[in-house]
Amino acid sequence: MARKSLALSEVYRLLEPGPVVLLTTARKGRANVMTMSWHTMMEFEPPLVGCVVSNRNFTFNILKSTGECVINIPTVELAVRVVGCGNTSGRDVDKFQTFHLTPAPASRVQAPLVEECYAHLECRVVDARMAAKYNFFILEVIKAWINPSRKHPRTIHHTGRGVFLVAGKTIKLRSKMK
Amino acid sequence: MARKSLALSEVYRLLEPGPVVLLTTARKGRANVMTMSWHTMMEFEPPLVGCVVSNRNFTFNILKSTGECVINIPTVELAVRVVGCGNTSGRDVDKFQTFHLTPAPASRVQAPLVEECYAHLECRVVDARMAAKYNFFILEVIKAWINPSRKHPRTIHHTGRGVFLVAGKTIKLRSKMK
Repeated sequence: MARKSLALSEVYRLLEPGPVVLLTTARKGRANVMTMSWHTMMEFEPPLVGCVVSNRNFTFNILKSTGECVINIPTVELAVRVVGCGNTSGRDVDKFQTFHLTPAPASRVQAPLVEECYAHLECRVVDARMAAKYNFFILEVIKAWINPSRKHPRTIHHTGRGVFLVAGKTIKLRSKMK
Repeated sequence: MARKSLALSEVYRLLEPGPVVLLTTARKGRANVMTMSWHTMMEFEPPLVGCVVSNRNFTFNILKSTGECVINIPTVELAVRVVGCGNTSGRDVDKFQTFHLTPAPASRVQAPLVEECYAHLECRVVDARMAAKYNFFILEVIKAWINPSRKHPRTIHHTGRGVFLVAGKTIKLRSKMK
């Protein structure tokens, strides 16, 4: 897939609107992917992202021990597979195989990119002090990729119980906001 | 406006999709409102919300000293006023007056509800230990309100520089996810 590097100063524009994402990790040559909606930008540049990965998730210990992951952003075409990844555990299945997702090598971390997604943020954990109490990790995005052919990616935004808002039209207003 | 109480266990469904929100605070009888996009759910029940309020914002010190706020969720009809609130400071103007927003009394906190919004979450700060380093506050939602007549609220999701995704159609998939 055509991928181009995205300036780190632009990363907030991908995550600020709250899309469901696929979080990938890898340990000992085995990759996993989980569905995640609980994340927020915390700083523009270098981009910091806070996210909740429950200690019930297979990913929790992998993220804690490797300190690396990739945030992949899917669009509505992948919705069924996104829900599939959210309803299964990497303890039981290889989700890449099960849901026909393609791992592609990242440049700075061991965790793979999910080829089918339109954007990818390679991250390392920079603060895990809130992991014990809140399952909260602070990530720094160290490399970002985007598929430039996707002008209006229809991201999906989970509102619970399998219901998603689909990004519709956009509006542009005069603003001094970044 | 018709408002009904919303079960705290349902609060995540409002914030998980990443809408822009209006955060209200009050001190010494003076209310303020700021525009915020950097927030995430952190726990289902009691609902915990993590959010970034920059120390450059007038709200920062008020939130820190009062430990109270209201998260109000606007829809696309309010977009111009939301951007207005994001481009001005409560140091300089009374934003309720300037942008024709109506403060209404909350039940558990001093900060007001913004009448024009379709949902309101009364919050108290439960952890400010990350405020110094990351401008990050953890809020507990102690009372939630929703306008039951709004079946498909078209929330807005900021992607930077005044561009917003507008929530479009919804899709529902079979899911075990909460």
